[in-house]
Amino acid sequence: MKVQSKASVRTDTACLAQRFQQVRSHSVALSAPLSPEDCSAQSMPDASPIKWHLAHTTWFFETFILERFERDFEPHHPAFRVLFNSYYNGVGDRHARPQRGLLTRPSLDEVLSYRRAIDMRVQQVLEQESDASRTSELGTLIELGLQHEQQHQELMLTDVLHLLSCNPMKPAYDAAPRAVRASAPKTQWQAFEAGIVQIGHEGEGFCFDNELPRHRQFVEPYQLASRLVSNGEYLAFIDAGGYRDPSLWLSEGWDWVKREGLAHPLYWQRNDDAPAGWQVFGLNGLLPLDPNAPATHLSYFEADAYARWAGARLPTEAEWEHAASHALRAERNGQASVLKDLFGVCWQWTSSSYAAYPGFQTADGALGEYNGKFMSNQYVLRGSSFATPEGHARVSYRNFFPATARWQFMGVRLARQ
Amino acid sequence: MKVQSKASVRTDTACLAQRFQQVRSHSVALSAPLSPEDCSAQSMPDASPIKWHLAHTTWFFETFILERFERDFEPHHPAFRVLFNSYYNGVGDRHARPQRGLLTRPSLDEVLSYRRAIDMRVQQVLEQESDASRTSELGTLIELGLQHEQQHQELMLTDVLHLLSCNPMKPAYDAAPRAVRASAPKTQWQAFEAGIVQIGHEGEGFCFDNELPRHRQFVEPYQLASRLVSNGEYLAFIDAGGYRDPSLWLSEGWDWVKREGLAHPLYWQRNDDAPAGWQVFGLNGLLPLDPNAPATHLSYFEADAYARWAGARLPTEAEWEHAASHALRAERNGQASVLKDLFGVCWQWTSSSYAAYPGFQTADGALGEYNGKFMSNQYVLRGSSFATPEGHARVSYRNFFPATARWQFMGVRLARQ
Amino acid sequence: MKVQSKASVRTDTACLAQRFQQVRSHSVALSAPLSPEDCSAQSMPDASPIKWHLAHTTWFFETFILERFERDFEPHHPAFRVLFNSYYNGVGDRHARPQRGLLTRPSLDEVLSYRRAIDMRVQQVLEQESDASRTSELGTLIELGLQHEQQHQELMLTDVLHLLSCNPMKPAYDAAPRAVRASAPKTQWQAFEAGIVQIGHEGEGFCFDNELPRHRQFVEPYQLASRLVSNGEYLAFIDAGGYRDPSLWLSEGWDWVKREGLAHPLYWQRNDDAPAGWQVFGLNGLLPLDPNAPATHLSYFEADAYARWAGARLPTEAEWEHAASHALRAERNGQASVLKDLFGVCWQWTSSSYAAYPGFQTADGALGEYNGKFMSNQYVLRGSSFATPEGHARVSYRNFFPATARWQFMGVRLARQ
Amino acid sequence: MKVQSKASVRTDTACLAQRFQQVRSHSVALSAPLSPEDCSAQSMPDASPIKWHLAHTTWFFETFILERFERDFEPHHPAFRVLFNSYYNGVGDRHARPQRGLLTRPSLDEVLSYRRAIDMRVQQVLEQESDASRTSELGTLIELGLQHEQQHQELMLTDVLHLLSCNPMKPAYDAAPRAVRASAPKTQWQAFEAGIVQIGHEGEGFCFDNELPRHRQFVEPYQLASRLVSNGEYLAFIDAGGYRDPSLWLSEGWDWVKREGLAHPLYWQRNDDAPAGWQVFGLNGLLPLDPNAPATHLSYFEADAYARWAGARLPTEAEWEHAASHALRAERNGQASVLKDLFGVCWQWTSSSYAAYPGFQTADGALGEYNGKFMSNQYVLRGSSFATPEGHARVSYRNFFPATARWQFMGVRLARQ
Repeated sequence: MKVQSKASVRTDTACLAQRFQQVRSHSVALSAPLSPEDCSAQSMPDASPIKWHLAHTTWFFETFILERFERDFEPHHPAFRVLFNSYYNGVGDRHARPQRGLLTRPSLDEVLSYRRAIDMRVQQVLEQESDASRTSELGTLIELGLQHEQQHQELMLTDVLHLLSCNPMKPAYDAAPRAVRASAPKTQWQAFEAGIVQIGHEGEGFCFDNELPRHRQFVEPYQLASRLVSNGEYLAFIDAGGYRDPSLWLSEGWDWVKREGLAHPLYWQRNDDAPAGWQVFGLNGLLPLDPNAPATHLSYFEADAYARWAGARLPTEAEWEHAASHALRAERNGQASVLKDLFGVCWQWTSSSYAAYPGFQTADGALGEYNGKFMSNQYVLRGSSFATPEGHARVSYRNFFPATARWQFMGVRLARQ
Repeated sequence: MKVQSKASVRTDTACLAQRFQQVRSHSVALSAPLSPEDCSAQSMPDASPIKWHLAHTTWFFETFILERFERDFEPHHPAFRVLFNSYYNGVGDRHARPQRGLLTRPSLDEVLSYRRAIDMRVQQVLEQESDASRTSELGTLIELGLQHEQQHQELMLTDVLHLLSCNPMKPAYDAAPRAVRASAPKTQWQAFEAGIVQIGHEGEGFCFDNELPRHRQFVEPYQLASRLVSNGEYLAFIDAGGYRDPSLWLSEGWDWVKREGLAHPLYWQRNDDAPAGWQVFGLNGLLPLDPNAPATHLSYFEADAYARWAGARLPTEAEWEHAASHALRAERNGQASVLKDLFGVCWQWTSSSYAAYPGFQTADGALGEYNGKFMSNQYVLRGSSFATPEGHARVSYRNFFPATARWQFMGVRLARQ
Repeated sequence: MKVQSKASVRTDTACLAQRFQQVRSHSVALSAPLSPEDCSAQSMPDASPIKWHLAHTTWFFETFILERFERDFEPHHPAFRVLFNSYYNGVGDRHARPQRGLLTRPSLDEVLSYRRAIDMRVQQVLEQESDASRTSELGTLIELGLQHEQQHQELMLTDVLHLLSCNPMKPAYDAAPRAVRASAPKTQWQAFEAGIVQIGHEGEGFCFDNELPRHRQFVEPYQLASRLVSNGEYLAFIDAGGYRDPSLWLSEGWDWVKREGLAHPLYWQRNDDAPAGWQVFGLNGLLPLDPNAPATHLSYFEADAYARWAGARLPTEAEWEHAASHALRAERNGQASVLKDLFGVCWQWTSSSYAAYPGFQTADGALGEYNGKFMSNQYVLRGSSFATPEGHARVSYRNFFPATARWQFMGVRLARQ
Repeated sequence: MKVQSKASVRTDTACLAQRFQQVRSHSVALSAPLSPEDCSAQSMPDASPIKWHLAHTTWFFETFILERFERDFEPHHPAFRVLFNSYYNGVGDRHARPQRGLLTRPSLDEVLSYRRAIDMRVQQVLEQESDASRTSELGTLIELGLQHEQQHQELMLTDVLHLLSCNPMKPAYDAAPRAVRASAPKTQWQAFEAGIVQIGHEGEGFCFDNELPRHRQFVEPYQLASRLVSNGEYLAFIDAGGYRDPSLWLSEGWDWVKREGLAHPLYWQRNDDAPAGWQVFGLNGLLPLDPNAPATHLSYFEADAYARWAGARLPTEAEWEHAASHALRAERNGQASVLKDLFGVCWQWTSSSYAAYPGFQTADGALGEYNGKFMSNQYVLRGSSFATPEGHARVSYRNFFPATARWQFMGVRLARQ
């Protein structure tokens, strides 16, 4: 991940310091409803303990900022350099990913104390740096660290949800209301003409390296659905035997469905006493399924099979971004756009394999290991979810997961020719 | 797989009958150097026994042609319907793929006899059909069956090569000379301008469903290498520590390299007595590595890592097809093209994930299970190899394999911006 | 495996030569009903291809006899030394066991030719050896090689049965009648008193090292069933829910039953049209289950669970051997013994873990790797089966398999206090 | 597990209440050096979280005592009935063993509170029960619950040691001195004559069901080593290439050594700066290896290979028990016995597979699932370790683990003929 420095970096130190403090304390706030045990466990190799998220995001500032900008840098704790490295081979050894839940030491308290110590040192560096060019570079790196931390903030919620779902008592994460009781009006199809479109990040603000360079793509005429597929619609797919009909599935998806014995989205469970016959586990615990709410926790394979069954398909990421840019422009101009829930509800699978844009460049050194090295066998999701931190979403943002991932807040917006 | 019937089907029955006979006997000829045991074994789940290829291609004609066109159709052997179905869920049950090597019955002789019986019945159907529209459909289906068989003819060679490589005695398949002793001249870079290009099958001839529809794509300016990466060049990558440097690899590729302990392409083995220090196992047995010959039996991950190390990248399939069309046009017009070995040496990895073209349609019924259902987590290869049957290659042909596959005749042509 | 030389070795060379010829040709005769493909395939890691059995038993004579007794010994084929070594680490490298089915070369014909060549050389050595002490040692080793070959003769039948069972066409090995249509009379319980008993091989004849030394054990009073558990009795266990009741099973056995989804013995399959509702696959193909025939193809876990359900238990090997010796003595003295089918029907599980007798010694060198190194996590079976070659069974014979093995001809004789 | 009621149960209620309080508080004391995170994690399927041990031992009293003896019994928490059932199929569902570390709820505090509540209720039942026969049964069951808890007390230490060993920081459990700096005098061999011996529990006190019935066995003459194999002796085995010589190993053990890449006991790590070149991780953290201390954390396979290398063997459990009984009798009579460290240092592997004694009976109902169902593919260890609670060891005690288990405090005492 590399912040693109063609953006004019906010050099207003006070402002950055305040933003730093806000983002950093939000991570701690997310752990507030949880016990030390909750924060230490790892429910599967794809997920990480909350404590690990809290420490790793701090490690990021220590490694990429303090080590570079502090005179007489001393590590907070030598062992933390290895324990909280996620996957940066360029930085040195790292602790085996599936063993993160065994790190009962350092304790949650020690990790929180690590956070406070690093926060103070980053603030100090920020205050004391007087060289203008270094201040600019520092600002760039801090911004990168904050964006990185915001990515982990969403993962903290998806990972803890998965952990709590493994507990037969099905405990709620908290009681804050989150249900999006959309009314699920009839889907409308917004049409777009064929032509050369531009996608990729534009303008001065922050973006990740994989959103660049902005470039041209040709899209054939297409239509995009005005809203997300709802639970009720997905239930009709289930009831129509969707999980039992191989002709609806990609071959690999069908093998996966059979091997895992799947018959519904993650976190759904049948309950004859519930209104629609189903309950869904979420951050508020086990609740009746709301047929009007968007269907979520779907894999790429499920999204694709549903789309085929519905006589539609998933959009490409170019189609999604072109349409979303159009809708945002319309909004800015006070015009109506039929496209709803592009952001802030759930991520939307596209049919696009996650790949480099033409002319893609990675940063030098370990920071270059951010996004590029994951460009195989993953699919792009666009938009953002209710768990995405305020201000972190962008029209050019590219989220990506393997075709079987379901524990993120992932849903479907259909397209068709 | 669906033959595109916009093509005018060759209705000359005599001509088709002759072609049928030629293609069908070529498969049997490929098995001639092999014993019944050789033809019955399966060396890995991805490969199939030769006997199975011989039977399955016959099953294809029995199922999709005889069952439809023969009056009073009777199966040659009821059990063969299940045993030799590859993956057509629409047709019924199928034998588990990794168990194909356990089918010691029917014997090779019985399978050859199955072939002769079905061949005679197909020829009879072809002679007796008098209805024009049915004759046209019949011709279309026979052509599809022959193209399908030609695909398996290449697999017969790659699969038997893998089987023989598992034998510590390293027996040769045959003694027919195949070595391509190219001189490996200095690579030249042919440049192409940005613009909208058209890719996908064009014209009247046969193509598979995944080559359609022909459509527009925008390509940024790019350059394509005049020739394939050679063994000598790939050896330099190995000697430079290519297999030990994680910064060159996709994350998933690096995990695979470490897990499998890989340090060279498939079928290479060190031998200090060999001229270049290496031997390579091939259809002619174990031979000294030829530094000028194109490097082959490389996975997508190796191709990608090599390209990164060489300061280049893999082409997209649109770039490859656009350049190859250009070269073919030039040739037809008697002009020189620097692009060599596009066809007939080895398949060339592209950076493109295997996906549907905009507007892609599958055929109805079981035949629709041909290509579309494999459109996930695979990468496209273009061109053809020395093992591709005469007349089977096309500029729009899309071959596809997972990123770790190495047993096909797969190599690398570089691209750059 | 070490022949115990306290046995007086048959020094009659002519007699040994004849026995050699008989045993050796029986192996070839066993392969007669099979095609080259049948002889080359391996259906699971525990089983070996027929061709491998034919070659390995030959390798045994070449390695342990010719290499020692032939002047100017030359291997028949250098590669065979590795390919056909089963597990003798002391002899050198060996081919990976699960890859034996990939050895399509040497062909069956070449293996048969290997057999003929080695046979001739062994016969020659036998004729030419004049030194008395060497002749005695030679005789001992040839006898060991023949006993070893007889063990493989039984495995050839169990392994090919497993292979044929994997073929959906369920082909018969041959049509020779084998069904033991016992009348299954009411079980009688023969009682034995407490006391010190002697077990282990006694006398001059051949035995394996694991049958020695003959030694004392104390047995408490016990009773042994007069006959083997029948299919009908085992069916009652199934029908009573035996495979669904964890209280009947050892913990490890229950985990295995659930993991594998087991509900009946190996080779049984339900068929509502069959008389007893079941068919059983055997060397004669798929036949109706005979309720009077002894139940076979049972694992230790199934044998143990059945015994618990039946209010009995498995005998220890000391109990079995003491009772069987008693019965043989009675027979020799013209007295009746209620104990039936001790030999020649199916092997009988005992509750005894396979372990060394007190004072057990292995042979020096590679031959010492015969039996001792398998003395962990296996259970002893006693008696012999219909597939055990004539003259190979003994009252002190210890067969042994892991608790989940089912593909041998294994059944149950009950004991109780 | 079944307390043998032929033992006269201590009916002195006050005394039992006091013992109850002591044993129960010892478990809590063992968790005192640990954080809530430490108590919640599970480092491998074979080990359990400390919190789970604390809860499960409590569940045992709730299920087998309160449910039976309390009028108007109400479960403390309905979900705990499933969550903290270890393997008693007779009691109902249970939580999957490898998922125990995901039970972050209930918290450690809630589990401690569960303990206090159940303790109070058990004490109340004990005070209020007036019926003499019920008091006797109650006493029996409480004693069984306490013995069960003591078993878990040892597991708490072995399991937490394994967890801490997974942490790269290698934290110590506590600082209490535990090192047994034996002087490792020359081993002496105590000889025992052949004859019928009696083994199994004798007398009035408590024992587990698997120690019964006391019965006769015949042992051939044998000798037993006066002391345990020391680290220094085991180091000589390593230095002599013990882990690289297949002839020393059982076949299954050798496969395991190669598959796992083993070269030393669990918790040993090379460190050139340490006195003997090795460090050992233990409850006090990472310390230099003491050559005089007994070698421990050895699997059965390592114990067996070492014994073979040393020209000796492992004792059978009858040999061990007979010798130990002899030594205890000698001690009671004020006579010297050369046999040292029979108890209180580390458990000692025997060559005996864990099996039922002749006439073994399990208890009725769920309590009968205690020991019998594990009688396959495990080996018996005798004696006790420094971690065995005071008063829990017995000469007839049978501990048992699979042949690859190493995380217990397991060592070797040699035997020979």
